[in-house]
Amino acid sequence: MKLVSYCRSDETECVGVWREELNGPYDLSRAMTLYAIATNSYSYIADTMLELLDSGACDPKFLKEIDTFVEKRALLDLLSDANDFKLLAPIPRPRAIYALGRNYPAHARESGVEVPDEPIVFAKASTSVIGPDDDVVYKKWLTRVDPEAELAVVIGKQGSNIPEEEAPGYIAGYTCLNDVTARDLQKKDLSNAHPWLRSKGIDTFCPMGPWLVLPDEISLPLELDIELRVNGEVRQKDNTRSMTFSVPYLISWISRFHTLYPGDVISTGTPEGMKPVFPGDVMEVVVEKVGVLRNKVVAEQ
Amino acid sequence: MKLVSYCRSDETECVGVWREELNGPYDLSRAMTLYAIATNSYSYIADTMLELLDSGACDPKFLKEIDTFVEKRALLDLLSDANDFKLLAPIPRPRAIYALGRNYPAHARESGVEVPDEPIVFAKASTSVIGPDDDVVYKKWLTRVDPEAELAVVIGKQGSNIPEEEAPGYIAGYTCLNDVTARDLQKKDLSNAHPWLRSKGIDTFCPMGPWLVLPDEISLPLELDIELRVNGEVRQKDNTRSMTFSVPYLISWISRFHTLYPGDVISTGTPEGMKPVFPGDVMEVVVEKVGVLRNKVVAEQ
Repeated sequence: MKLVSYCRSDETECVGVWREELNGPYDLSRAMTLYAIATNSYSYIADTMLELLDSGACDPKFLKEIDTFVEKRALLDLLSDANDFKLLAPIPRPRAIYALGRNYPAHARESGVEVPDEPIVFAKASTSVIGPDDDVVYKKWLTRVDPEAELAVVIGKQGSNIPEEEAPGYIAGYTCLNDVTARDLQKKDLSNAHPWLRSKGIDTFCPMGPWLVLPDEISLPLELDIELRVNGEVRQKDNTRSMTFSVPYLISWISRFHTLYPGDVISTGTPEGMKPVFPGDVMEVVVEKVGVLRNKVVAEQ
Repeated sequence: MKLVSYCRSDETECVGVWREELNGPYDLSRAMTLYAIATNSYSYIADTMLELLDSGACDPKFLKEIDTFVEKRALLDLLSDANDFKLLAPIPRPRAIYALGRNYPAHARESGVEVPDEPIVFAKASTSVIGPDDDVVYKKWLTRVDPEAELAVVIGKQGSNIPEEEAPGYIAGYTCLNDVTARDLQKKDLSNAHPWLRSKGIDTFCPMGPWLVLPDEISLPLELDIELRVNGEVRQKDNTRSMTFSVPYLISWISRFHTLYPGDVISTGTPEGMKPVFPGDVMEVVVEKVGVLRNKVVAEQ
């Protein structure tokens, strides 16, 4: 099952279920309302993905019940927003984005550094998040911008000091993330041991989406092909099994320092293949069983 | 005028005006409602500080009108929450905290590095924010924790590429911030050019408060004495005029990379004087005309 955040032309942020046959979403909040009425059950009706996660209702079994109800009662057309939607990032403004540096050994090697012996975690600015229908803006003063294909994990419930064996229960789902990087700034900052924030957190440098795939569809340990394509050409290609630190380990490790909250994002690092993009280029992050995240690079006006 | 975020025993987050004679806050949302009724004017009633900032109503002149109205109509007792409040950080969960490294030359020198030629900006985790009535938790595995006294600026309106001369118009107010740092982790991470996040963003490592002082009370350029006291002993002492990069410059510079939003926090760096604290210690960040932020260090249970 695929959940999406989207907005209608009235600019309301909605949470929906993506259905292939609609080539669009249906309104999950309205579906939850109809389901609650029909089954005479009470449930908190979430208006946004973050509210859904915060309320604890983002449970694959419960959501599947609602989806089956929509199907059986032939409510799909009634609830469809397929004629009026723009996809947003699944979590349009996460409380936190924890991103991994050098979590694929081949990328560590091409960066000229050792494979790390503990996770290297930096913050991506949550203000840099854009959705699958938005453009990455190439600011006038930038001189090198590299896309980085990554699998991102969205957290489903609050926790700190989470034991690794319990970590899978904290996963709300998976999405694609493009960890766009101002490589020239990054090199300069790394040589001074300066913070990673500016090279990784520039406005629009965090495309995310197109949807949240629920965790019952993807088994652990993760063995997913991951690719970056630019204008159709494959530039990065690996499999998530190459990650030095697994998703459960990362959840456990990060939660020792930072309490994790619903909607927090952990982006699991990028494979080898650093090459720049330029205005006009179309970037695609492709993760098996998760989806394709496509964004264009445009020049700042 | 001093604005506070606080919660009542029913746990509702409120925004209030701090009054010395109450030794507590009055409820600004209710005051705004009464003012709107009495003056037959419509205004958006904010329930929280962030809503107040987002709505654009955090204007010193407008707020003073309301305060005068409360005074003249003798509404202070009616609106007082002085018997039932716990102060929160002025922005309990900011969208972003941009914190400055080495912005006081003497602190750069004691750190053994050059005075920087451009701002060094890192992200403090917004999940690490605590209020003036909360404790800093010393986790079991920490070996060195240093407090850092800082003046923080809260942003009042959205902007990017803000010209330095327009930057003062983006300031909603000032507060105190303690940039608590796991110094041993920081040293290790700096020696590897690793991100600054974990040493600066551990849970509870960002005390902020006690209130937001509106900018009409503090003139630019800033000339405010700043101190850190631990158990009453002065450990850091300087004046904000020593900052290498001024507040308007920082607002302008950061906004080239990251769009600033209402409620975003810029913490302007710390003076010389790195020394550790331990469980049981009481830290005070004292900024002239702004206030005293007092927090205790407690051992993790």
